Amino acid sequence: MDAHEFAKWAGHFDIASITVPTATPTASASKNAVAAAANESAEDDKVIIGLTAKKETDFKNWYRQLLIKAEMLEYYDVSGCYVLRPNSYSIWEYIQQHFDAGIKKLGVRNCYFPMFVTEDMLQKEKDHIEGFAPEVAWVTKAGQSNLDKPVAIRPTSETVMYPTYAKWIKSWRDLPLRLNQWCNVVRWEFKNPLPFIRTREFLWQEGHTAFATKAEADVEVRHILQLYADVYEQLLAVPMMQGIKSHKEKFAGGLYTTTIEGFVPSTGRGIQAGTSHCLGQNFANMFDITFLDDQHQSQKVWQNSWGLSTRTLGVLCMIHGDNKGLVLPPRVAHTQVVVMPVGITARTTEQERLALTKAATDLVAILNAAGVRATDDCRTQVTPGYKFNHWELRGIPIRLEIGPRDLAKKETRAVRRDTGEACNLSVAEIVVSTQKLLDTMQSEMLARATAERDSRIREIMLFENGFVEALNAKCMVVSPWCNREACEDWVKDNSARQDDGSDAPIDEKEPSMGAKTLCLPFAYNEDPSRKFKEGTKCFACDKPADLWALWGRSY
Amino acid sequence: MDAHEFAKWAGHFDIASITVPTATPTASASKNAVAAAANESAEDDKVIIGLTAKKETDFKNWYRQLLIKAEMLEYYDVSGCYVLRPNSYSIWEYIQQHFDAGIKKLGVRNCYFPMFVTEDMLQKEKDHIEGFAPEVAWVTKAGQSNLDKPVAIRPTSETVMYPTYAKWIKSWRDLPLRLNQWCNVVRWEFKNPLPFIRTREFLWQEGHTAFATKAEADVEVRHILQLYADVYEQLLAVPMMQGIKSHKEKFAGGLYTTTIEGFVPSTGRGIQAGTSHCLGQNFANMFDITFLDDQHQSQKVWQNSWGLSTRTLGVLCMIHGDNKGLVLPPRVAHTQVVVMPVGITARTTEQERLALTKAATDLVAILNAAGVRATDDCRTQVTPGYKFNHWELRGIPIRLEIGPRDLAKKETRAVRRDTGEACNLSVAEIVVSTQKLLDTMQSEMLARATAERDSRIREIMLFENGFVEALNAKCMVVSPWCNREACEDWVKDNSARQDDGSDAPIDEKEPSMGAKTLCLPFAYNEDPSRKFKEGTKCFACDKPADLWALWGRSY
Repeated sequence: MDAHEFAKWAGHFDIASITVPTATPTASASKNAVAAAANESAEDDKVIIGLTAKKETDFKNWYRQLLIKAEMLEYYDVSGCYVLRPNSYSIWEYIQQHFDAGIKKLGVRNCYFPMFVTEDMLQKEKDHIEGFAPEVAWVTKAGQSNLDKPVAIRPTSETVMYPTYAKWIKSWRDLPLRLNQWCNVVRWEFKNPLPFIRTREFLWQEGHTAFATKAEADVEVRHILQLYADVYEQLLAVPMMQGIKSHKEKFAGGLYTTTIEGFVPSTGRGIQAGTSHCLGQNFANMFDITFLDDQHQSQKVWQNSWGLSTRTLGVLCMIHGDNKGLVLPPRVAHTQVVVMPVGITARTTEQERLALTKAATDLVAILNAAGVRATDDCRTQVTPGYKFNHWELRGIPIRLEIGPRDLAKKETRAVRRDTGEACNLSVAEIVVSTQKLLDTMQSEMLARATAERDSRIREIMLFENGFVEALNAKCMVVSPWCNREACEDWVKDNSARQDDGSDAPIDEKEPSMGAKTLCLPFAYNEDPSRKFKEGTKCFACDKPADLWALWGRSY
Repeated sequence: MDAHEFAKWAGHFDIASITVPTATPTASASKNAVAAAANESAEDDKVIIGLTAKKETDFKNWYRQLLIKAEMLEYYDVSGCYVLRPNSYSIWEYIQQHFDAGIKKLGVRNCYFPMFVTEDMLQKEKDHIEGFAPEVAWVTKAGQSNLDKPVAIRPTSETVMYPTYAKWIKSWRDLPLRLNQWCNVVRWEFKNPLPFIRTREFLWQEGHTAFATKAEADVEVRHILQLYADVYEQLLAVPMMQGIKSHKEKFAGGLYTTTIEGFVPSTGRGIQAGTSHCLGQNFANMFDITFLDDQHQSQKVWQNSWGLSTRTLGVLCMIHGDNKGLVLPPRVAHTQVVVMPVGITARTTEQERLALTKAATDLVAILNAAGVRATDDCRTQVTPGYKFNHWELRGIPIRLEIGPRDLAKKETRAVRRDTGEACNLSVAEIVVSTQKLLDTMQSEMLARATAERDSRIREIMLFENGFVEALNAKCMVVSPWCNREACEDWVKDNSARQDDGSDAPIDEKEPSMGAKTLCLPFAYNEDPSRKFKEGTKCFACDKPADLWALWGRSY
C-alpha cells in the first residue's frame, strides 16, 4: 500500500485530511462539553428536569433526585455500587490535591500496596478482623479455575501493609516511616446503601505511619485531624466537630480514634466525616514490627492510620443542596461562573444577538485568563429560564447575565446561587468583583452552615430532661458522661423512637435509631472553663461525670 | 475529668505539651525522610548493598535486584502482586499529572465507575469477552455468605461503562462524551509475572470516548497516541515507535488499535507501551448505544478507548538503569540533586565540618527555592563513598560535592549520574547551571536511547536473509509484509529459537519465542518515499507486499 492506501486500510481514515491537533481547541471543547453535559433533547420537555421532592419534607428522595439530576452520580447494576460522574469526581480531585499537598509538606510519601490480602494476614489482628470480617469480599475464582487460596479485597490496608513494614523497619534510623495511598476499598455491607455515604466500594486515602515514640504519633494524629477539618471547612464550607471516639466506637484494633463529626440538619443525624487513629503498639505486636533503638534495645513501633473518603461528597450535597439543586462552594466548583446572554426577543436583530453572544464569550475569556473557572451558555434552542434552572440545578456559584441594557452600560448582572441575591457589576472590574463575590460566597456558606449546626446542639444535663426530645427535634446533645460502655448502651437502647406504625420502609425508620456517642469533643473537654463542678453526675446514670460527650442519631 | 485528665485518659497523651504544628517542619521532615529512606544499619555492612548482577549478562536478575535495592518495589505474598514504593510511585505521579493535564485540555473529564461487573454485562461483546475471560477474577463470597450472583473485577472497563453510556447518550447534542478514569485493574494471568511489566493487578488510566462520526474518533485516537508517546519521550526519555496493530494483535472487540512500541536492547524484545483503540461501532452494537442525529435518524456512536499503565515504570528501569543502579531522567526524579560535604578527615575541625554542612544545606535551600528538587546528605555515620553508591543506586541525576577547597573557591563539584562526568560549578550561578545540566541530561538520555534503539532495527526484505539472525542479535526487523494472518502465524512459528537444552527455567526461554508484529509503523507506512516498488513481495511468502511491518520478540 502507499501512504494513502495504508490510511484507508488502517481504519479507513483519511490520513491526508487529518491534522493531529496542536493548538488546544479550548473553545470548541468546552462548548462541546457544555453541550454534552447540558443537553436535554426536545423529547425531554415532558420530563421534569428540576427536583420535585423537597429537602425539608422528603429528604430521602430529595437527596437521590439531587445526585441524579445534578449529574453527580449514576446508579449501577451491582447493589451498593455507584458511578461517580465528572460533576462529583471533580470535587474529589480538588479534595485530593488539597490534602495531598498538606501531607507532602509533612514529609508523607505516596505509595501503592496490592488490593488483595491473604487470609493469613487478614487474621493477624484479632479485634481488627472481628470488626471487618463480615464485610470482606473474597475472590475465589479466576477464569474457570478455583484459586488454591482465596484472596480478600482490602476493606482497609493495615493487614496488607504491616507485614512489609515489619520487613522494612529494623532500626531507629528507619523511622519515622510515613506512607499514604489513594485507592479504592470494598466493604460488602448488608445495611441499606446510601450514595456516597454508605457504599460497597468507595475511594479514599489511607495514611499509615510508624514512629519510635508515642509522642510523635500523638502529634501526627491531631495534625492530620486538623487537615481533615480543613478539607471540610476550607474547601467544602462544612463545619466539623473534632473529638475522640469512645472506647466502644473507636477503630477495631487501635488504641484511640480521633474524629471529625458532621451533622445533617435535615435529618438530625450526625455523620462521621474522617478519622485519624493512633493504633498504639497493637499492630506492632501482631505483625512483629520492632526496631533497635540507639541503645541497641529492641522496641515496638507506635503507629497511626488515618482515612478520608468520598463520603465527603455526600456530606457536601446534604448540607448545601437546596430545593433548586446543588449549591457548590466556589473552591470546589469545576465551573464557578456561567455567562449567558438574556433579553433576546423576536425583535432582537441578528447583529444584536451576535453582539450579546460575543460579549458573553469575551467575558468568559477574561475570567478564565484570570483563573476564574468560567463558561458560557449561548445555546439558542433553549430559553434563559431553562438555562437558569439548568445551572442552578448543578450548583454553579455565579450566573452572569448580559442583556441589551447591560451591554450598553458595560455591565453584567451577577446572581449568587446560594442566596439568589443579584447585583450589577461593571465589566471593567469584573475579575476583581467576581473573585470577591466567590470568596464572599465561600465564607458565608461556611458561616451559615456553622450557625445552623450550632443551633442544633443542646446541652442536656439529665437524660429525662429532654435528651430524647432533643434528638426528635433533630438536634445533637452534649452531656456530662461517665464514660462507661454499659451506660452508652443504655442510652442507645432508651433513645430509640417507638415504631410510629407507619408503612414507611425499614430505612425510613432509621432516624428513630438510638443515639450513640459521636465523639468526646475537644472543644468541650479541653476547655478549662467547662470543667465539671464537684459532684456532677453522669446525665444518664448515677456514676460521677467523667467528660463531655456529644450524642446523636447518626449515619 | 479536667482537660489534663481527659488528655491522659484519651490516649495517655499530654495535651498540654502538644502543639499542633503550624510551621511546616520541612528541614527535619526531609532529614527524617532522608534518614528513613537511606538507612542501612551497621549490621547490613555485611549485606552487599549494590547490584551484583550485570545488565549485559544477567538481565533477569539485574532487573529484579535493581527494583528491590533502589527501593522501587517490594515483593508480596500474593503471586503477581507487588508493592509500589514511593520511589516508583512518585514517577507514576509525574506521569499522571502530565497526561491528566493533556487530556483535560482536550475536554476529557475524569470520573470513576465501579470495579465490579456482572456476568451479564461482561458477556455482551463476544470477541471482547473471549479475549479477557480466562483472566477475570471473580468475587463469589462476602463475609461468610456466598453471593447470589458472583461479580467480576474489571480487567478493563468497557463492559462496566458502556451500558451507562447507552443510557446517557440519546441525542447528537450528548456527543462527544469523553471520560477517563485512573484506577486499578486485575488480570489474573497465568504466565510468569514480571514486576511492572506483567502483574496481576496494575494501575492505569483508561479513556472511553463516544463520537457522532468516525472522523472525530480517528482524530482522537492519534492525538492520544501522541500524548502517550510524549509521556515516554518527554518525561521518561524513552523513544517510542508509533503504529497500528495487525488485525491479529488488535484489541479484542475493537476496530483498530494504534500503539506505541518500546524496545529493550538488553533482551532484544519489543514491549507494547500504550494503546489507543478505535472501537468502531462494535460496542455500540452490543450495548445499543444510539443517538438521534440532527435529522432525527437513529445512529450508532463511534467509540475509542485508550490506556496507559504502570508498565511505564518497568520500561523506564529497563532502558535507563545500569550496573550501578537506576538512572532517573530529571523530569521524573523525586530528588533531582543530592548535595553532600566531602573531604572530611580526622584532621578536619568541628568548625570546618559545620561550615561544610551549612554550605550543603544552604545550597539545598537555594535550589529548592528555585524549584529544583534537592536534598542534602550530611550523615556522619557513613562515608562519602557509601553515599555515592547509595544515591547512584537510586538514580539521583546530579550529585553536588562540597569539600574544603570547593568551599574556599565558592564552588561545588557536580557529577552526572548518567555519564559520570564531573565539572565544577560556581555557587553564585548554581541555579542556572544546575537547571541547564538537568535539561542537558534529560535530552541526552533520550538521544542516547533513541540512537541505541535505531541501531537495533534491521530492514530485512527476505525471511531467509537474516530475519531470525536479526532477532537472535537482539534486534527488531522491519519488512514488507502481505498483511495476512496466516503469514503472521508462519513467521512466529518459524522464528522461535530451538530449545538450547539448558536448564534455564521456562521464562529464561522466553527470548526464544517467535516474533510477532509489534506494529505497522506510521513512520514507514505514511512515508511516500518508502512506497514499495512494483512487484515487491512479502518478505515471508509469495504474496504481494502490502505494507511495512515491525517484527520482534516481545514481552
